Amino acid sequence: MVEKLDPAARAELLASLSGWTEVEGRDAIEKTFRFTDFKAAFGFMTRVAIAADGQDHHPEWSNVYNRVTILLTTHDADGLSARDAKLARVIEEAAAGSGLST
Amino acid sequence: MVEKLDPAARAELLASLSGWTEVEGRDAIEKTFRFTDFKAAFGFMTRVAIAADGQDHHPEWSNVYNRVTILLTTHDADGLSARDAKLARVIEEAAAGSGLST
Repeated sequence: MVEKLDPAARAELLASLSGWTEVEGRDAIEKTFRFTDFKAAFGFMTRVAIAADGQDHHPEWSNVYNRVTILLTTHDADGLSARDAKLARVIEEAAAGSGLST
Repeated sequence: MVEKLDPAARAELLASLSGWTEVEGRDAIEKTFRFTDFKAAFGFMTRVAIAADGQDHHPEWSNVYNRVTILLTTHDADGLSARDAKLARVIEEAAAGSGLST
């Protein structure tokens, strides 16, 4: 069993991440990224997929052309855990290097 | 402007595809694929992404671990077009070679 973030760790995570919001009705966080085109969006997804699989922690995500929406939560913790914090940081790094739309 | 499928072509498309259903409230079709694991699911997505970008026709899709849900419609036609039929067939081929869960 993975432990949920305690309220202090959760507040710190949200304060440290730009553009991630809490999801209504779920203990989860979400962000939508916009890239220059589909190639950039899918390149980003590929970087995230490899990192996520390496961490054995996978996002719930969707893509429409240049937009990628990612939701993070930890099923084993029934909410946000340190795994989500770690993956969110990797996602931010991948996005920064993947042709974000300005 | 891309032309919508006429009723006969649309019926033929749905009859020829296994597991695709019409989407409530949208002129679109949808299917969920289940793979053996995340690697197989994302491998499938990568094949579809390359083919879709080559056709300049992109799916709306989401992924949760080993599941991929794909919605096809043609924004320029405001509904289903021959582009969706072509992409659906490519998606079926990619799925068949990507480790579908049995």
